[in-house]
Amino acid sequence: MAVEIPADELPQVLVLAPPADFSSLESQFPNRFHFLKPWFSKLPLLQFLTSYAQSAPALLVSPGDRLAVSSNILDCLPSLKLVVTISAGVDHLDLPELRRCGVAIAYAGNLFSEDVADMAVGLLIDVLRKVSAGDRFVRKGLWPTKGNPPLGLKLSGKRIGIVGLGKIGSEVAKRLEGFGCKLSYNSRTKKPIVSYSYYSNVYELATNCEAIIICCGLTKETRHMINREVMLALGKDGVMVNVGRGAIIDEKEMIQCLIEGEIGGVGLDVFENEPEIPEQLFTLDNVVLSPHVAVTTKESMEGLVKLATDNLEALFANKPLVSPFVD
Amino acid sequence: MAVEIPADELPQVLVLAPPADFSSLESQFPNRFHFLKPWFSKLPLLQFLTSYAQSAPALLVSPGDRLAVSSNILDCLPSLKLVVTISAGVDHLDLPELRRCGVAIAYAGNLFSEDVADMAVGLLIDVLRKVSAGDRFVRKGLWPTKGNPPLGLKLSGKRIGIVGLGKIGSEVAKRLEGFGCKLSYNSRTKKPIVSYSYYSNVYELATNCEAIIICCGLTKETRHMINREVMLALGKDGVMVNVGRGAIIDEKEMIQCLIEGEIGGVGLDVFENEPEIPEQLFTLDNVVLSPHVAVTTKESMEGLVKLATDNLEALFANKPLVSPFVD
Repeated sequence: MAVEIPADELPQVLVLAPPADFSSLESQFPNRFHFLKPWFSKLPLLQFLTSYAQSAPALLVSPGDRLAVSSNILDCLPSLKLVVTISAGVDHLDLPELRRCGVAIAYAGNLFSEDVADMAVGLLIDVLRKVSAGDRFVRKGLWPTKGNPPLGLKLSGKRIGIVGLGKIGSEVAKRLEGFGCKLSYNSRTKKPIVSYSYYSNVYELATNCEAIIICCGLTKETRHMINREVMLALGKDGVMVNVGRGAIIDEKEMIQCLIEGEIGGVGLDVFENEPEIPEQLFTLDNVVLSPHVAVTTKESMEGLVKLATDNLEALFANKPLVSPFVD
Repeated sequence: MAVEIPADELPQVLVLAPPADFSSLESQFPNRFHFLKPWFSKLPLLQFLTSYAQSAPALLVSPGDRLAVSSNILDCLPSLKLVVTISAGVDHLDLPELRRCGVAIAYAGNLFSEDVADMAVGLLIDVLRKVSAGDRFVRKGLWPTKGNPPLGLKLSGKRIGIVGLGKIGSEVAKRLEGFGCKLSYNSRTKKPIVSYSYYSNVYELATNCEAIIICCGLTKETRHMINREVMLALGKDGVMVNVGRGAIIDEKEMIQCLIEGEIGGVGLDVFENEPEIPEQLFTLDNVVLSPHVAVTTKESMEGLVKLATDNLEALFANKPLVSPFVD
């Protein structure tokens, strides 16, 4: 029979703010960590940290926290050795500050790549073939009275551009090969082992493609990289899918282009100010809106708990991290 | 300058009932045929045929006609040599009667296969990953207040069963290979050149798969082939996509299984009594409803006009049909 260790004797893991489903997440962690949960305390966050988290070596964060891990927080955590973020993106972390403090980062790595790629293809088919719009059409009872809905566009054989050919972009490409698509990509550098056409900037990519799929991370360089010029280059039948980060697209310009018919449609899993979304998007039929779920499946959530546990246990056992983020 | 031939001197093509978009379709046909359009006449159909279509050698039909091409119609068309159906299915044609009358059939053949396969994969991703449901969730403004929607299921790596491994089924399989899916299939006979697992009946297929995609035609044998037993074998997380014909699934039993949670979800492009759909389906969130558009894209409609034209011209030039249906 396993002996239950008192919580106080377990290694401390600070959770900055509860992930949306932390209670269910926590129940899946083995009896292995003592989670410090400042949101249950009446103290202001920084005071809680100063009072209770001085010796916490590990911090668990999620991109939904809205609390950037930056100097004011790190200054209260002198024992911090590791931040485990349950995300593939790290734009909610102050990387230079973490580096300065000597704090390592473990992240979801490639855990989500397949799920995100599946969703990207799903959104692409949905926008081109008007799947969600067709579902709305049928549910409103319009089929018997209005007859056929507007025609969709074919996916097979289309020229598709992938923005960011990392793990996710490569998985998207692999899937689209099965559809006979002609693939090209944009990334910081040309990949020597890839046969797809390379364009050194997104404008050229959009000019030469019928659809683009945004799979890159958000950085200073990629913020609003998809601007009006890129959308005009994509053209009136052109389609965009975004499974990266919302702010990679200039959202205001995108809405203008959609309303003016300057682009054909968009499938978005991410938004500039999610979960708030510009209401104008709700009125458009050539838009598929997804509540940032490209990474979340039953399977990926189970894998995430295991990966976070494995990284924390590696820290406490002085072993190499399972999925370290290397800047 | 091309000389316009008077309509009366052009070869006659009878159109039994207008396809939903016949006026736009007709405008795309070259000035090559004289279309007889009984729906513009005050005469009852059979009387119109007897009066005006005695010498018509060709008949253009679409599966949406709701007028089966059967003996009462064929008896009025003694000169008929060819039925051109703008569909890949032929279940609206009385094949024995056409054979008896010596009338050839041209059909859409494989023209739609890629589009249908694209849509099948799109519906599969939509049901598993809850794309349309997510779009509804966001458009209703629920994201900021309700937080995360229910988790979807992963597609990559899933065991997928294909019902009917003809041209469409094979195209679906090709696409799903890119997602790392483990494929198996059911068909009348085992295909010697295919490496996917073969099951001689759909019950066994459903038992061994997490999702099935129905790609076969409607025949006496396949009507209600997907019955309650098959759905129970598929199981509570199991998913079905139907791009074949509605009546292949026992729709009443399917609705019962969905309501009882006996299957996980369905993506349907076809229905037993379309465009009428059981309203119970409108209330279910694990259902994607598509108004029979798997075959219709801007590109396929253009290809269809060309194929119909080529078949009709082949008839009038005494040449072999471009896409004959061979029973």
